[in-house]
Amino acid sequence: MQKFRVELKKTVDDSYDVRIGRNLIPELVADLKGGLTGNCKKFAVVTDTNVRELYAAPLVEQLREAGFSAELFVFPAGEKSKVRRTKEQIEDAMLEKGFRRDCCVIAAGGGVVSDLAGFVAGTFGRGVPYVNYTTSLLAAADASIGGKTAVDTDLATNLIGLIYQPKKVYIDIDTWKTLPKEHLINGLAETVKHACLADASFFSYIEDHVEDILNGVPDVCEYICEQNCRVKYEVVMKDEKEQNLREILNLGHTVGRAIETVSGYKLLHGQALSIGMTAQVNLGCRLGFLTEDERDRVIALQKRIGLPVGIPDGIDREELVKKLYTDKKVRDGKLRFVFQKGIGEVMTFGEDVYARPVAEEEIREILMQM
Amino acid sequence: MQKFRVELKKTVDDSYDVRIGRNLIPELVADLKGGLTGNCKKFAVVTDTNVRELYAAPLVEQLREAGFSAELFVFPAGEKSKVRRTKEQIEDAMLEKGFRRDCCVIAAGGGVVSDLAGFVAGTFGRGVPYVNYTTSLLAAADASIGGKTAVDTDLATNLIGLIYQPKKVYIDIDTWKTLPKEHLINGLAETVKHACLADASFFSYIEDHVEDILNGVPDVCEYICEQNCRVKYEVVMKDEKEQNLREILNLGHTVGRAIETVSGYKLLHGQALSIGMTAQVNLGCRLGFLTEDERDRVIALQKRIGLPVGIPDGIDREELVKKLYTDKKVRDGKLRFVFQKGIGEVMTFGEDVYARPVAEEEIREILMQM
Repeated sequence: MQKFRVELKKTVDDSYDVRIGRNLIPELVADLKGGLTGNCKKFAVVTDTNVRELYAAPLVEQLREAGFSAELFVFPAGEKSKVRRTKEQIEDAMLEKGFRRDCCVIAAGGGVVSDLAGFVAGTFGRGVPYVNYTTSLLAAADASIGGKTAVDTDLATNLIGLIYQPKKVYIDIDTWKTLPKEHLINGLAETVKHACLADASFFSYIEDHVEDILNGVPDVCEYICEQNCRVKYEVVMKDEKEQNLREILNLGHTVGRAIETVSGYKLLHGQALSIGMTAQVNLGCRLGFLTEDERDRVIALQKRIGLPVGIPDGIDREELVKKLYTDKKVRDGKLRFVFQKGIGEVMTFGEDVYARPVAEEEIREILMQM
Repeated sequence: MQKFRVELKKTVDDSYDVRIGRNLIPELVADLKGGLTGNCKKFAVVTDTNVRELYAAPLVEQLREAGFSAELFVFPAGEKSKVRRTKEQIEDAMLEKGFRRDCCVIAAGGGVVSDLAGFVAGTFGRGVPYVNYTTSLLAAADASIGGKTAVDTDLATNLIGLIYQPKKVYIDIDTWKTLPKEHLINGLAETVKHACLADASFFSYIEDHVEDILNGVPDVCEYICEQNCRVKYEVVMKDEKEQNLREILNLGHTVGRAIETVSGYKLLHGQALSIGMTAQVNLGCRLGFLTEDERDRVIALQKRIGLPVGIPDGIDREELVKKLYTDKKVRDGKLRFVFQKGIGEVMTFGEDVYARPVAEEEIREILMQM
């Protein structure tokens, strides 16, 4: 024998339900009793200092009342916690408490929590079941569909991680009422992005309901959440066939991620994204991908929501340009951007090509004027 | 909408070739030029201080001669390096050198290298292609088939990791001639384990060829390598259907992994496994799963090879008993062991049940007498 083939062709089914509703903790516990995660009786509830008392501690309590073993693992709230060190600390604490491969991880919180908890679940015992209970608009839009988990490093955001699917996602609209307004605003940045890339009428709906959203009118919030998930879902689903389509979700993120890092995470993700979207429509307009009116509508909507559309004082633009090269879309050392086409569509640059090479000078010029 | 289903049912093909031969670096480079890892032009060669000069540096050189970009990432040889900190250092060094998601990771070394490099590949950019060039008997047997990658923590071995399949495995028999005899002996422990659990005639072959193996007679080494891969492959393949069968590869590892940790990794993995196998046949004999003659044959073969069959001085047996509970087979706080049935088969304890609960007293008594 000089060679043999390891045959690993198989059908896998990672399908799962996304539940959108109110007061979902009892339903989550009932699902677990009904066998959502098989025979698992031991749950690691991963959360941050913001969500701990509001929802994670009650969840642990209800799990215990249902006869499960459950422990809380809490890290400091904020993007700065989304690093390998926090992942290690959670793992060590789980091991210390006797957790092994027969456990299940439940994320209770926003996007940072689900990114971290999903990554922990995906590598703990080489993968244990994972359930996502999301408590923020941003998480609903950005982190509940697609299975992306990751941490940041000094040199790159979201570059160390996994695609790891949850057993079920719960989007509890009730929890939004306890979100600080700043975080609600933050979450709307992804919503605007989704509308820009896929749905002109959804964009108009947001324009018409900014105040209702910020005031937490339930029906409006539920609709916003549904549309967010729908856009994301459709893109992620189609991407099963078209390898690169998922890149369009990266709209606005090239500059967004870079400025988030350069700001030392003083900018929230949504704030950074809004600045990134502004850079994108400015450059896109220059390149003829959308009109000045369309560009101005996007910028105006972000402003009305309360999102920043300029580069804040104290950000070194040259450092920002340098940081662009840590973007995951970089190929062969060249920057690549996704662009919206008008409002509600994205540009394509060939079959299954959604990102366009951008010369450093082109984007530097835009950034210098923002 | 209150609920919607994310459909993620699909067929995946992770099949790959295992190549067993001599002087395989030129073939590996030719395969990469032929598109083994798609369009990838940037290779991170991960290796340890032992393998660096012998094979990894020449591999990098040949990759560069072939027109690829290639960099060497070296960590100190030994199981102690198989930790999250080393993974982080490799990742940071890769990011520092400009590696992003368009790269490929090549492991060049033994089991520790492939465990670490495979884990790095599986989470870098959420997964980049990975090629395994193995330079030790142990890696050929233990790490080239099955896709298991992992690191150790203070509290558990191999508990943080992934199942991540390579694009191809190269087992270069030529490299065995530079293995220190201690490492060759170390690798034979897994070989004996494979024979014990699956193939009585292979066990006899090893008994008949101990000296040839230790002297590196090429045909004998190639045969040993083939049989190792065959046994492992058959178990891993069947496990696609029978969920628990893979546990039989854990034969001898319950005590083995624990003593490896308690020794502070002064014991090599194979040495620890040999002690674990001895504990397993002692307990199995007591429980009537194999005869005294069969038990003695296993112990005698390990001795002839040069493997330890008793617990070395300085190992605290009570600490060892406590450490058993960090084993990944532990369920509901109970120890579970896999047992061989005579020589060449494993015990089953029900349909698709290969591990038997063992009372702490049963195994303590065995360990006190070793």
